[in-house]
Amino acid sequence: MSRPRSWWGWGWADRALDAEASRRLAARVAAFGLPLDGTLARVPDPAGLGLPEPRLTPPASLAELCRTDPLTRAAHTHGKAYRDVVRNLRGELDHAPDLVAYPRSEADLVALLDWAVADDVAVVPYGGGTSVVGGVECRDRSRPVLSIDLTGLSGVVEVDEISRAARIRAGTLGPELEDQLRPSGLTLRHFPQSFEFSTLGGWLATRAGGHFATGHTHIEDLVAAVRVVTPAGVAGSLRVPGSGAGPSPDRLWLGSEGTLGVITEAWVRVQSRPRFRAAAAVRFEEYADAVAATRDVVQSGLQPANCRLLDRLESMLGAGVRDGSCRLLLGFESADHPVDSALNRAVQLCRARGGHPDAPTREKEMRADAPDAVAEWRDTFVSAPYLRDALARLGAVVETFETACTWAGFDALHAAVIDAVAHAGIAINGSPALVTCRFTHVYPDGPAPYFTVYAAGRRGAEVAIWDQIKVAASEAIVANGGTITHHHAVGRDHRPWYDRQRPDPFALALRATKRALDPAGVLNPGVLVD
Amino acid sequence: MSRPRSWWGWGWADRALDAEASRRLAARVAAFGLPLDGTLARVPDPAGLGLPEPRLTPPASLAELCRTDPLTRAAHTHGKAYRDVVRNLRGELDHAPDLVAYPRSEADLVALLDWAVADDVAVVPYGGGTSVVGGVECRDRSRPVLSIDLTGLSGVVEVDEISRAARIRAGTLGPELEDQLRPSGLTLRHFPQSFEFSTLGGWLATRAGGHFATGHTHIEDLVAAVRVVTPAGVAGSLRVPGSGAGPSPDRLWLGSEGTLGVITEAWVRVQSRPRFRAAAAVRFEEYADAVAATRDVVQSGLQPANCRLLDRLESMLGAGVRDGSCRLLLGFESADHPVDSALNRAVQLCRARGGHPDAPTREKEMRADAPDAVAEWRDTFVSAPYLRDALARLGAVVETFETACTWAGFDALHAAVIDAVAHAGIAINGSPALVTCRFTHVYPDGPAPYFTVYAAGRRGAEVAIWDQIKVAASEAIVANGGTITHHHAVGRDHRPWYDRQRPDPFALALRATKRALDPAGVLNPGVLVD
Repeated sequence: MSRPRSWWGWGWADRALDAEASRRLAARVAAFGLPLDGTLARVPDPAGLGLPEPRLTPPASLAELCRTDPLTRAAHTHGKAYRDVVRNLRGELDHAPDLVAYPRSEADLVALLDWAVADDVAVVPYGGGTSVVGGVECRDRSRPVLSIDLTGLSGVVEVDEISRAARIRAGTLGPELEDQLRPSGLTLRHFPQSFEFSTLGGWLATRAGGHFATGHTHIEDLVAAVRVVTPAGVAGSLRVPGSGAGPSPDRLWLGSEGTLGVITEAWVRVQSRPRFRAAAAVRFEEYADAVAATRDVVQSGLQPANCRLLDRLESMLGAGVRDGSCRLLLGFESADHPVDSALNRAVQLCRARGGHPDAPTREKEMRADAPDAVAEWRDTFVSAPYLRDALARLGAVVETFETACTWAGFDALHAAVIDAVAHAGIAINGSPALVTCRFTHVYPDGPAPYFTVYAAGRRGAEVAIWDQIKVAASEAIVANGGTITHHHAVGRDHRPWYDRQRPDPFALALRATKRALDPAGVLNPGVLVD
Repeated sequence: MSRPRSWWGWGWADRALDAEASRRLAARVAAFGLPLDGTLARVPDPAGLGLPEPRLTPPASLAELCRTDPLTRAAHTHGKAYRDVVRNLRGELDHAPDLVAYPRSEADLVALLDWAVADDVAVVPYGGGTSVVGGVECRDRSRPVLSIDLTGLSGVVEVDEISRAARIRAGTLGPELEDQLRPSGLTLRHFPQSFEFSTLGGWLATRAGGHFATGHTHIEDLVAAVRVVTPAGVAGSLRVPGSGAGPSPDRLWLGSEGTLGVITEAWVRVQSRPRFRAAAAVRFEEYADAVAATRDVVQSGLQPANCRLLDRLESMLGAGVRDGSCRLLLGFESADHPVDSALNRAVQLCRARGGHPDAPTREKEMRADAPDAVAEWRDTFVSAPYLRDALARLGAVVETFETACTWAGFDALHAAVIDAVAHAGIAINGSPALVTCRFTHVYPDGPAPYFTVYAAGRRGAEVAIWDQIKVAASEAIVANGGTITHHHAVGRDHRPWYDRQRPDPFALALRATKRALDPAGVLNPGVLVD
């Protein structure tokens, strides 16, 4: 039997913190001023929650692809945002899909879509279900809702070792994808935080960003061709390394978040596994100096794999820094050549801005059994969502949000966001929310800051509290020229701000495209476009 | 008075080869087997060509923006492809625009588009006019045609030195753009072969590729935001370094070739001017080894600025190589750090495939007055189109075409294209056409091969001969999985193959978008979509 996933929270069911671990966590967070009542919310049994009766019966030909059991429906109701976890814990599953279908082939998927169009059924394409933007939660209840779980369409189908490309089905989860590429010595090297539980199709549909700070870290730079099933037919683009032929067809599907079609497979660009690596952590007394050094490094053209600047509070809470300084984590990797000179140059740029490397920089040729970037990243980040879930059960409000802005605009955006969130905390709880910031990606023209919020909750009011903080943060972001997404989608949760930022003629074009490809409007209603 | 541009051929009027230089050129090409009759076609005077009467009178408010003199209309009739030059020389200007307008502001442009929509006038957005795909030639004569020359909307408007970004008007020509960035020590570093005579707006509308072989060489990677006037309103995207918010709005306009709107300005990513440079030429006896070495270099992650592989015939005709070998030209550049180790590693990879560097590799810190990549490239390439024009006047058929394909597919594509063009030459002339190949860009997953064709012509039949060769070449490209464009657009000339390669649902989406943004269908009819 396969290891069970958590229906209500992140990841593996058996990784959820137990009562004792949760108590220790509560004690730790109390130390930095987050009051918790010490009780741990019980996880309900979906079978006892009285989910709304399914309003949908599949045709006989599709019946064996479909499930209606409460656990399956509950697990497909929400994504994995904080507000999803809280609602799951409270048994608020009003938005449960009526039916969950598991196509085993593209033909199954076509048949399911045909049926949905014929019977006016809303369709939610579902990959790993790790959306943090309401992307898989159909809130429009005017029609029955069919969640199509694509994890049955999985596997690396074909590897072109000469061209370093692989054809991979959309429902393939991250670890499965890397495992199947490993015998060829290749890697996609796309490691979003959700890596273990998200799919290639989900990455493509949301224009996911990977763990690496610079270079080809976004999935759109790693894709050579996509195949998409739409109600108006199947679209398959030509696999070429580059083309200037008209507007890019692939770019229409990338970021379309299930509204224009269902991605079934893609040709992606793979590469040799890294062999050389060098890393350093640089300490800065002043955040402004650290920001300037980070900018210098990314504008130098060095392309670090890791260039993660933690602000004071993030350094303290996330990296255990006790002296009030900031940390810039730098790392370089290559499959072909040593990277020590690149790291040395980056450290030199940091020194010129007052930075001090914590430890001697290191260079090594990686042994096959040595921990690689993935493993190291996994150690650091994989446990974070489990802690978040435990804090949610303890009654805290803990969530993250992201943006990207220009270097010239960053200081003002950073100050405004911190201020807005802290004030929202005061308005709600009488005490400021804690906000930390790190850069997840850096570009020559600006950083992608990623904020984490910790605030006191009130049982039953957690979602409302978070929503209030989120509005304050989003308004501050938009007012300061930042983009509005999370991991890295719009979904249903960012629609008000997205609609304001999107150029009106582009909205016209998107609506016209939607009408052309999905005239019945069955695909993921409420996302991106109405 | 400004230096006059050639109305009929490439570039500056005074750079056209004179009779004596043309005679010397004819002698040189006769040596490699291209028979020419020795006469030099006369350049006609547009005033004497009896251009069709303009069918269009601008409203009084727009009259001062418009010109109808024969020279202006003749210069805006065609692009700069071989078939354009030949038709100009023969005085075949049936497709002359009725009127040429020169907006001085976005408001002028909006007024011109409003008038065109109201009076059902076809609009051809015209930047530098260097299209080689029929992109600025309106062949549909059912409506009057207005060519809108955008070179009046020019200049660098704003530079954000912190974020390394500049806001630049779309009608800015390459040299003007670089001249205005130079005082800030910055460069866009986008150098298509047409650089001197093409505009930022044209690069964006055609998804232009620059001179550099790898890295951010395509204009789409250098643009942070665009502003576009459409009949349905003005679209301005948010300037952020990255965003995952829905399908990229900018990507709709990039490559839209004037069919969905007129680009008026863009925020582009600029960078420090390079200071370090290293280059080498590597000799290979076997082309297959050279191809494999080129692939190794680009898959190594080294990102050479130059990685130009010339096949045997290209090495002979283009680089003066006498011993029948091939050449790979390698170059690295950086504004920040020495690049000798990168070049050394690339050369080492070449040696492992049997390559021999011609000369010792060199590393230098560039002096301010030293020739830079631009100047060097200019020397090499700028004269090529002038030679092409002279050969056209001498009666030869000389043209280029491009594609991009996977590494796995390259050998078959290369052989098929050479074979198809040679055979087309035999069918037409009884002797094979000469075809050379070089790589203009290389990607980890494949090269962008660029072919040059030399064939005998027959006075009056040159266009038909070239069209026949082009069909043979295009069929061979498409049959072997290559993309179909030229510099780097579809225009009117590639429609039959583009329509076959484009996914049908994407065509539906594009048509729907066209109807939404340009309901009267006035924008560049015949290009991309009907």
